[in-house]
Amino acid sequence: MTKNHFHLLKTSGGARAGELLTAHGVVPTPVFMPVGSQATVKTLTPDDIKELGFNMILANTYHLYLRPGIDVIEKMGGLHRFMAWDGAVLTDSGGYQVFSLAPLRKVSDEGVTFRSHIDGSEHFLTPERAVQYQERLGADIIMVLDECSACVDGKEKVRQAMERTHRWAERCLRSHQKKGQALYAIVQGGMYPELRRQSAECLTQMDFPGYAIGGLSVGEPKEITLAMIGETVPLLPAGKPRYLMGVGAPEDIIEGVARGIDIFDCALPTRVARNGALFTGHGRVNIRNAAYKTMDAPLDPDCDCYTCRNFSAAYLSHLFRSGELLALRLATVHNLRFIGNLVHRIRESILDDTFSEMREDFLAGYQTTDEDTRVAQKQRWLKSRL
Amino acid sequence: MTKNHFHLLKTSGGARAGELLTAHGVVPTPVFMPVGSQATVKTLTPDDIKELGFNMILANTYHLYLRPGIDVIEKMGGLHRFMAWDGAVLTDSGGYQVFSLAPLRKVSDEGVTFRSHIDGSEHFLTPERAVQYQERLGADIIMVLDECSACVDGKEKVRQAMERTHRWAERCLRSHQKKGQALYAIVQGGMYPELRRQSAECLTQMDFPGYAIGGLSVGEPKEITLAMIGETVPLLPAGKPRYLMGVGAPEDIIEGVARGIDIFDCALPTRVARNGALFTGHGRVNIRNAAYKTMDAPLDPDCDCYTCRNFSAAYLSHLFRSGELLALRLATVHNLRFIGNLVHRIRESILDDTFSEMREDFLAGYQTTDEDTRVAQKQRWLKSRL
Repeated sequence: MTKNHFHLLKTSGGARAGELLTAHGVVPTPVFMPVGSQATVKTLTPDDIKELGFNMILANTYHLYLRPGIDVIEKMGGLHRFMAWDGAVLTDSGGYQVFSLAPLRKVSDEGVTFRSHIDGSEHFLTPERAVQYQERLGADIIMVLDECSACVDGKEKVRQAMERTHRWAERCLRSHQKKGQALYAIVQGGMYPELRRQSAECLTQMDFPGYAIGGLSVGEPKEITLAMIGETVPLLPAGKPRYLMGVGAPEDIIEGVARGIDIFDCALPTRVARNGALFTGHGRVNIRNAAYKTMDAPLDPDCDCYTCRNFSAAYLSHLFRSGELLALRLATVHNLRFIGNLVHRIRESILDDTFSEMREDFLAGYQTTDEDTRVAQKQRWLKSRL
Repeated sequence: MTKNHFHLLKTSGGARAGELLTAHGVVPTPVFMPVGSQATVKTLTPDDIKELGFNMILANTYHLYLRPGIDVIEKMGGLHRFMAWDGAVLTDSGGYQVFSLAPLRKVSDEGVTFRSHIDGSEHFLTPERAVQYQERLGADIIMVLDECSACVDGKEKVRQAMERTHRWAERCLRSHQKKGQALYAIVQGGMYPELRRQSAECLTQMDFPGYAIGGLSVGEPKEITLAMIGETVPLLPAGKPRYLMGVGAPEDIIEGVARGIDIFDCALPTRVARNGALFTGHGRVNIRNAAYKTMDAPLDPDCDCYTCRNFSAAYLSHLFRSGELLALRLATVHNLRFIGNLVHRIRESILDDTFSEMREDFLAGYQTTDEDTRVAQKQRWLKSRL
């Protein structure tokens, strides 16, 4: 099945429309995966996720290994049955989480020792174990274990982590047994174009059914993110899917697709929703603003989500101000539907070969958020490089 | 419409089956109303509530008056449209909340001055205003403003509050204008049989379309609750609905129905759900118990709710242990469905005239919770009376 894991159907400039063939259905690409790290997309049932139009979600090996444990999920018949989701699942290996959430890491070529962020218990993860855990979880697409560097790390440190990631990728590939499950490699190399190219070249020499770009959107300015994608994608095989990990703001999806990305995941749409930040065609707005208290119209009149079809902005504002749990759910529904609709429009425009117009159109209307914050972020980053 | 507000269809012992005719549909009784104080049943959409089989909910004037404000809801077309609920709504007047939540109360015959529990602002509520607010909210059934006494108050204090409640009831009745909206009186009298009888006699001399029993289940032992219901109900008119306010544990609903109650509301099923306490035919269980961590079966195999149809107890346990928001929603769905099914079975058994068997059957299987807690509660209460 990995041989026919991906069909490229059409390109429009650098953008690609295709489909992923998985054991749990065909997934049209470009695709955005809602994040369900702990085997649940926060506030939503599997029925909701399907009704929102998604057919692939992301879950996380690090989280599930620590709680409830791989044994429990395996005993329950695997991740799909455990969470009652019959669509496709991609599991991340947990590499990123070990390097971002877990305290007291010790990395050697053999693997990484870390402490649980939940109870402080010590654990040892190797490339082989990461693959084995993911085989037992039973996801449709699984990821190699990678060593992630911080965006401010110096070149030598990043190079060493990258080279280890390559050695680990090879071990993952060698140990992967399960049929009907696609194992993707992860290109690393930090913010160094030369390393990104090296990583892409090295990993494409091994025969993975898909390639991810990791270690981006970790604090660096957006121009750098896009530049790194631009360095990497041309070196990846055209016939295989490309997954940009952890990136998924509306404008980032458009720009990623324009550069040849097929798969996205990101906690941002659901996380900011729970803070009251909601996507509209004009940009992100905050439902807590006073203007919404008495607005007798949906937050986004162009939106066809359950929230906008049924409730006024005033009601949503009331739920947020009253600390009501339904607020979090209705906002999550809205933001995911917005992203789902956007990705759908992108795909249609690629199939019509009108993607570049669609992209211009969308970006002209969509105010990206917090220019100030981004300037500050950039300054912080530049300073860290000195 | 208030003339034909209630049809009594059948009795079985003291239990009654009937129907309420409201501007938003016919509501079969006995009925349990999920609590949506702030114009939302916590975690659920209106579609969920309907799918669970409920067609009347409770909302609260005190909460909605303070936030978002009566003006806002009126401007949005009333409570039904605001919360996108086309079933029936009963609003409590806010009397109970003023006397339980708001600090710095000052009561006079004219009305009650209180401070908002949200921002400390001062407000003045009168019987006329309570009615007017509820008219503007547009509920199908509304409640008089009552003065609530504490379960430990002495007889004189309780008598005075009761007598004021009677005077306020009369003023509410006189000021109520809105057609198609039923105004219910509230019987008070604390834990004093004599006062309960006086209150029932006094209020039934005024022509209300329905009668509630207030001030119960406020800390007193269950035998006292049931005794007070027993004192009151025989004095209420048979042709009008009887509403036991704030009572709704499974065993309490059965016992209330047995004593002639038609309408119940209670935050308990949804509140304990969010703490992981779930109803089963054998009693309340806590999903956080270790046994559920690996249970590959629904929490309650006899339950037909969305949660039990789709998820194992192990998954629910995982969601609770991981602090996931979906836990609260799935547990709420289960507990409300349990109550809805129970009330449905009760009604069927009344129509079949097999209620007393059904009652015995249910209570024989259902372990009521925390005998220790109840003994402690009773001792505390008895001590407070000395």
